[in-house]
Amino acid sequence: MQPIKVYADRRSQPSRAVIIFCWVNQIDFEEVTVDLFKSEHLTPEFRKINPMGQVPAIVDGRFKLFESHAILRYLASVFPGVADHWYPADLFTRAKIESILDWHHSNLRRGAATLVMHTVLAPFLGVATSPEAAKQAEKLLMQSLGTIASVWLKGDAKFLLGSPQPSIADLSLVCEIMQLEMLGDDVRDRFLGAHDKILIWMDNVKKATSPHFEEAHELLFQVKASMQSKGPAVSAKLKITSKL
Amino acid sequence: MQPIKVYADRRSQPSRAVIIFCWVNQIDFEEVTVDLFKSEHLTPEFRKINPMGQVPAIVDGRFKLFESHAILRYLASVFPGVADHWYPADLFTRAKIESILDWHHSNLRRGAATLVMHTVLAPFLGVATSPEAAKQAEKLLMQSLGTIASVWLKGDAKFLLGSPQPSIADLSLVCEIMQLEMLGDDVRDRFLGAHDKILIWMDNVKKATSPHFEEAHELLFQVKASMQSKGPAVSAKLKITSKL
Repeated sequence: MQPIKVYADRRSQPSRAVIIFCWVNQIDFEEVTVDLFKSEHLTPEFRKINPMGQVPAIVDGRFKLFESHAILRYLASVFPGVADHWYPADLFTRAKIESILDWHHSNLRRGAATLVMHTVLAPFLGVATSPEAAKQAEKLLMQSLGTIASVWLKGDAKFLLGSPQPSIADLSLVCEIMQLEMLGDDVRDRFLGAHDKILIWMDNVKKATSPHFEEAHELLFQVKASMQSKGPAVSAKLKITSKL
Repeated sequence: MQPIKVYADRRSQPSRAVIIFCWVNQIDFEEVTVDLFKSEHLTPEFRKINPMGQVPAIVDGRFKLFESHAILRYLASVFPGVADHWYPADLFTRAKIESILDWHHSNLRRGAATLVMHTVLAPFLGVATSPEAAKQAEKLLMQSLGTIASVWLKGDAKFLLGSPQPSIADLSLVCEIMQLEMLGDDVRDRFLGAHDKILIWMDNVKKATSPHFEEAHELLFQVKASMQSKGPAVSAKLKITSKL
């Protein structure tokens, strides 16, 4: 059987979630790097794969799919080797996971991705920052982290919804929060320092998917180091027109 | 069997989608109005139903659920009378629908809901408008409508993805676009006038769910008429702290 193709840039948090999921579940795939910093996601060729010009996207035979949550659901459903806890067949448990996945878009993701864009990334990309957008995003991110800690991380359970094993929601949300590394240690700690529960949960997700989690995040830490050493002077070299 | 409870305000577009879905599929439910204009969604009582303080939310026996897409998936899955086309069992078709539902959050919904908030609603609510946010939202809304028309409304098919029958994605997206009624006829037409395909599709969804579609939208048109006749002077009477 032909491996699926995963179009991804590991600097993109939903790309990492899909790649980690495939590795952990031994899904045979070919990773096709779409370099966002070289605007490869905006080429006519890539738009034939995903008309939205975003990563990740997959091709499975003649079937094309984009949006990371849709991809994770699909992979969990069509590959029989994927353990049930990732996307449980039980309709009640699944519905609760869906609820988190839907919430994510307009809350944690909107907060974190917008903040990273309008603070750290924009100067590097030669894009105008919006202090208003950054301020709103910071507020939304703070609220979202508070929600995760108070609503979904219950008692001493290791994962969201009090589960002993991770779901695709754990993976998606933790990969999103990892993007805060780009803000530097001080800023990251300002958001996460008050949330022991979240730090422990992130560590649980990392351990449950190790060593794949670390491998998928290597590039993120390289970018972080590069940004910190070079400063905004590197902006002229980077041409990105879409958020990560 | 006890009917499910649907906590909703029909002025909220995802609330309408859930209510229409229940009516069309003859799901026995009790509608509990949570008046957003009276901030009833922010009361401690309602937060026991939905800690996010948003509508819609449902209670099915001891099971509580929020986020409209999660609710629609759940209802389509647990009520055997719901026709397959709403949320197809076929994994490929379902995945494509999931892709639209996920895309919706950060595109059509973010554009439309933000625009309505920062133009028409804010003055009525005594909330400061952000011209920058409104401008960004307008751009995103325009792009999103273009995407729907060019990517998902193919040929002469009546519904998204070339389907002859509607899915929960059709219902969710059309209810969102209906919210543009609040902007008044001229502005609504500025967005939709160039998109015959979208107007025909919206009409198809309306016809497929008639007379429930019209009934669920009655209140929206009353609010629209009221806004147009009273103007911003009414703002002092309305206290809303969350987006519709």
